Amino acid sequence: MSFIHDDFMLLNETGKHLYHNHAKDMPIFDYHCHLSPQLIAENHEFETITEIWLAGDHYKWRAMRANGVPEEKITGAATPEEKFKAWAETAEISLGNPLHHWTHLELKHYFGIEEVLTGDNWKEIYDRMNKVIKEEKMTTQQLIQGSNVRFIGTTDNPTDSLEYHDQIEADTNFPVTVAPSFRPDEAFHIQDRRFSEFLERMKGLFGEAPSSYSMLVEQLAERIDYFDKRGTLASDHALEKMVFAEATNDEIEMIFQKAVKQKAISTNEKEQYLTRLLVDLAALYYKKGWAMQIHFGAIRNTNSYWYDRLGPDTGFDSIVDSAGEAIALNHLLDEMAKNESLPKMILYNLNPTQNHVVASAVSNFQVNNDGIKSKIQFGAGWWFNDTEAGMLKQMEALSDHGLLWNFVGMLTDSRSFLSYPRHDYFRRILCNYIGQQVEDGKYPNNQKLLGKMIENICYTNAVNYFKK
Amino acid sequence: MSFIHDDFMLLNETGKHLYHNHAKDMPIFDYHCHLSPQLIAENHEFETITEIWLAGDHYKWRAMRANGVPEEKITGAATPEEKFKAWAETAEISLGNPLHHWTHLELKHYFGIEEVLTGDNWKEIYDRMNKVIKEEKMTTQQLIQGSNVRFIGTTDNPTDSLEYHDQIEADTNFPVTVAPSFRPDEAFHIQDRRFSEFLERMKGLFGEAPSSYSMLVEQLAERIDYFDKRGTLASDHALEKMVFAEATNDEIEMIFQKAVKQKAISTNEKEQYLTRLLVDLAALYYKKGWAMQIHFGAIRNTNSYWYDRLGPDTGFDSIVDSAGEAIALNHLLDEMAKNESLPKMILYNLNPTQNHVVASAVSNFQVNNDGIKSKIQFGAGWWFNDTEAGMLKQMEALSDHGLLWNFVGMLTDSRSFLSYPRHDYFRRILCNYIGQQVEDGKYPNNQKLLGKMIENICYTNAVNYFKK
Amino acid sequence: MSFIHDDFMLLNETGKHLYHNHAKDMPIFDYHCHLSPQLIAENHEFETITEIWLAGDHYKWRAMRANGVPEEKITGAATPEEKFKAWAETAEISLGNPLHHWTHLELKHYFGIEEVLTGDNWKEIYDRMNKVIKEEKMTTQQLIQGSNVRFIGTTDNPTDSLEYHDQIEADTNFPVTVAPSFRPDEAFHIQDRRFSEFLERMKGLFGEAPSSYSMLVEQLAERIDYFDKRGTLASDHALEKMVFAEATNDEIEMIFQKAVKQKAISTNEKEQYLTRLLVDLAALYYKKGWAMQIHFGAIRNTNSYWYDRLGPDTGFDSIVDSAGEAIALNHLLDEMAKNESLPKMILYNLNPTQNHVVASAVSNFQVNNDGIKSKIQFGAGWWFNDTEAGMLKQMEALSDHGLLWNFVGMLTDSRSFLSYPRHDYFRRILCNYIGQQVEDGKYPNNQKLLGKMIENICYTNAVNYFKK
Repeated sequence: MSFIHDDFMLLNETGKHLYHNHAKDMPIFDYHCHLSPQLIAENHEFETITEIWLAGDHYKWRAMRANGVPEEKITGAATPEEKFKAWAETAEISLGNPLHHWTHLELKHYFGIEEVLTGDNWKEIYDRMNKVIKEEKMTTQQLIQGSNVRFIGTTDNPTDSLEYHDQIEADTNFPVTVAPSFRPDEAFHIQDRRFSEFLERMKGLFGEAPSSYSMLVEQLAERIDYFDKRGTLASDHALEKMVFAEATNDEIEMIFQKAVKQKAISTNEKEQYLTRLLVDLAALYYKKGWAMQIHFGAIRNTNSYWYDRLGPDTGFDSIVDSAGEAIALNHLLDEMAKNESLPKMILYNLNPTQNHVVASAVSNFQVNNDGIKSKIQFGAGWWFNDTEAGMLKQMEALSDHGLLWNFVGMLTDSRSFLSYPRHDYFRRILCNYIGQQVEDGKYPNNQKLLGKMIENICYTNAVNYFKK
Repeated sequence: MSFIHDDFMLLNETGKHLYHNHAKDMPIFDYHCHLSPQLIAENHEFETITEIWLAGDHYKWRAMRANGVPEEKITGAATPEEKFKAWAETAEISLGNPLHHWTHLELKHYFGIEEVLTGDNWKEIYDRMNKVIKEEKMTTQQLIQGSNVRFIGTTDNPTDSLEYHDQIEADTNFPVTVAPSFRPDEAFHIQDRRFSEFLERMKGLFGEAPSSYSMLVEQLAERIDYFDKRGTLASDHALEKMVFAEATNDEIEMIFQKAVKQKAISTNEKEQYLTRLLVDLAALYYKKGWAMQIHFGAIRNTNSYWYDRLGPDTGFDSIVDSAGEAIALNHLLDEMAKNESLPKMILYNLNPTQNHVVASAVSNFQVNNDGIKSKIQFGAGWWFNDTEAGMLKQMEALSDHGLLWNFVGMLTDSRSFLSYPRHDYFRRILCNYIGQQVEDGKYPNNQKLLGKMIENICYTNAVNYFKK
Repeated sequence: MSFIHDDFMLLNETGKHLYHNHAKDMPIFDYHCHLSPQLIAENHEFETITEIWLAGDHYKWRAMRANGVPEEKITGAATPEEKFKAWAETAEISLGNPLHHWTHLELKHYFGIEEVLTGDNWKEIYDRMNKVIKEEKMTTQQLIQGSNVRFIGTTDNPTDSLEYHDQIEADTNFPVTVAPSFRPDEAFHIQDRRFSEFLERMKGLFGEAPSSYSMLVEQLAERIDYFDKRGTLASDHALEKMVFAEATNDEIEMIFQKAVKQKAISTNEKEQYLTRLLVDLAALYYKKGWAMQIHFGAIRNTNSYWYDRLGPDTGFDSIVDSAGEAIALNHLLDEMAKNESLPKMILYNLNPTQNHVVASAVSNFQVNNDGIKSKIQFGAGWWFNDTEAGMLKQMEALSDHGLLWNFVGMLTDSRSFLSYPRHDYFRRILCNYIGQQVEDGKYPNNQKLLGKMIENICYTNAVNYFKK
């Protein structure tokens, strides 16, 4: 039997039944990913598996570094073959790391390869993968359609022209909806060159850079209109930690002026500014019916030696521990709710020890008269929690404090066009988990109800939740 | 087979044997609950299941909100039938939430109903439940006695006359001991209108309000005498987080004067005051042989929009994350131990990530010459941890750092007279857990020893522990 | 079947196979323990089981205190028999605590006793154990050799003469390598009498106490040379929490002068000093090829009443919760890496909630050109995590964020010469865990690969990792 077989990760009969009848064939509503709209629009054709697997995948880079592979064979000048070999040797012994499962799911799903990748068979696998890529003319659109994807929410800068989205929309041969998501992180990074670059680009769009905080919000509101017309369903925000600090309008304007002039800004001022901008944007999203996403808890670019050489997103980020997140998160949501402009919201924490804090906090703000089910969502296991254990812990915490039934489920959160099997992985884990509950007599054995629950979490909940 | 059957939650043979022979029929020593002494004294007769289930149960309210039920059908003006229907529809899809199990345990235990509650059968179930309530003339005393309860510790204000406790004591038809527990939270809430209201009530009792901190402690000592004569075995304290801050007597008196005059009090002053009052009360409890209970880690009334409309305890509380709790907790216990006036103590943390901190800290203060077994107790999974996962994590942490054998076990912590099946739930989970340890060969298979362990944790330990 | 049998803790066939064929007979590379070099050098012969088991084992003391045993029978004047009886009574009911397993593993491994120790059979067991001790002339060297130990890294003060290590090295009858490990905690404890005592001893060695920080580092560098010549492979550091605070050279010298003169030092100054000394020592270790060990997260001597009477290491320590550890840890490692003098490093956190923070942080600093596999190690479950649950959580977190395959595995961290069965315990848990992954289809069922993985984690990885 091959390692990745029909019942992979399915250890009970109920789970197998649920997966094969209610999960496997559900479409994918990929509401949060980092796929390149340009590569989709241009229907990019891939050259080699090294390009696909190793050109930018910092998960794999981290594993190779942990296996003592010299950096030359990771991000350096080594040949594609050398790099693939180093990865194969690492993959072979990566038992237990999610990469091991992802790798073999991708080998099976996209290449029909059932062997386990090793330091011995790497060359043969390498050649077979490249042959498939060449023979099938593997392209971005083909990979997306082959994965049964109905919707893709990319991640886009507020200043983006969205030209590639327009191009995709106009492409009658490609039926998948690809909508931009609004990610204005740069507007938050005052005290950072990204802020002045952002202001510069806003100037390019509006003729003048925002000269006040209120003008910044007005300009962002216009960009939100612009995105909204192109089908945007969600925004996305990254925070190192949850923040809440009150401020007067005058204080906010003063902080903005300091930021523009690149003057020193205190920690409290930074938090005041972040709080206000989150609250103001939330009100704008609320009017559009968008879902606001906030993910928090990463410390980034920790290794300055390699940051100087490789830049960001190269495998040097990890999990932060902060205290006081519950208080900040509750105050932030309260501020939005008080103004009756709390949008739909999905919260993703990176530190799994915050699962119960977040899962219990979201339940404080579910009241709404629009019938939105679990309006504030405790998001799926994110980044370092995108593992079997991480997914299960998220589902258990959600079950303890809320309604798993209403969970909008898995997101891809990936730059790779080969990542869709992670939905399959999630679905297997979900079905196995729920199947075990049933077989242990903890859920009633009502197949109709259970089937609907699975279909909801795999697809239908997301469709309904993101509706504007 | 009905969902709630004889072996519900019991997945191994040893666990089944332990439950049926050593757990099921043990009485309940309910050392911590929020039942109304008045309703017990008056032997209140219930009218409808909506009154019992939905009039004040903020657990159910939270679930309904998370299911998109409009507030009108939760705390609003909708009819009892509409509310019950909305709850039934929520209950049906609440698979995995503890409410799902509690609901069906209560249906089975008190109403003999074995069907699973759904949005389809809600009317039939509603009518049957109300019929039972009416035909059996379901009263508070009947529910308590039918649940095999031997002792109830209610939760009472220091200024309470305890007249209902006297009335219950005098009621020769009701054999269950109902003792007050001393909960002086209001004495801690300086800078809050509850403090001045409390002083006012103290004035009503003593002729004059306490004019100094030392007078406050003297008056509280008199109330402790008053409670002690009525059989009190325990006190109870709620803290948002653990505190420890040293202060001189003069500082404490100064803070007290500020509080009386409603002047601004710094965070440090607040912590100094809390620390001192906890230590001083501990010494008084110690003399009486009471157990002191401290539960900490809740952020309350987070949703100000709904707090303004519904008040406290309406489903808008959640879990706090704090740092430095280990240091504060150890210093606090040390301060009491240093004075040789550390009472029996039960500590309940709401954030489950603190389980190992608390379970390991209590082991620092177990020394005593009175032969008290596990004098400082790591309390049962509380509130948001009153779930299968929460209970198991508490028992595992206790096992790692102390002696599960000496655990005083489950408490009800409920306002509902239908909550006693939660003891049954706990016992099933306990027996299943221990049964699995035995079947995995991790505990010796000594049935006599295991039976005693179960009986101890279900009942006997609590009886012995709370003895004055 | 006896409680401790061949397949104890092994619940699946793959795990049994792996244990019996690849784990059981692997030697022990005990890279971190607290055995007394003097007792090894002198080949100390033990008198009674009370001496071995109860003279200094604060784990057992804590359990006895939690069982209400009066202190007299723990650390007081009671007879060896009384103490053993009190321990036996506690052990009997310590089901679930790791002591219960350790006790019975030691009974079986060293005494061939298969009965479960109880309050009934204590006298018979006591006599049988003492008989074995006497008849076998149980000595330190015999216990070590009988445990298949190849290497022992003791824990030693920088000022130690290491005479006993020399004596052991010269002892041709004892083939086990016993190397000192460098533990300069006292150089960190400024504002503590241990610091001045340390300076005094440095004066004894060098003729003069260090009069500046730079001189302190020079003297420590000489001691590192001294240790290195005696085979040292590792250093060891204890921190209450992770620290990082930058400082100029002048600031560091000023803090050092304050410390020498026992003047007040602020928290920030303390952290500046700690940071600098860790970084400077790391550079020295790096040159020697040593592994640096840092364990953090314990609050010590919490019970001042008993600290005054019994001193340190008497069972009054527990787990600390701190925030901001991720940021401090990443900055600290970054500082070392930036200087290209980051040594091999093993990090042990005491608070298990930090597992994911540490496991993900170490992956930021694995890059090296020496082919060192997992140069920065997430260390084995330490102290309060040295339990089945603690070990599993560590392995799961390591698997999620790194490569379990490269894990250097278990350490003894014990003062007791009977502790080696804890390696056996670890190996059983490891084999069972990996076996379960295989039987659940989560690891490929490649016996050769799995056998190598087990052998690596049990022994080979440590041998390769610590090579200079």
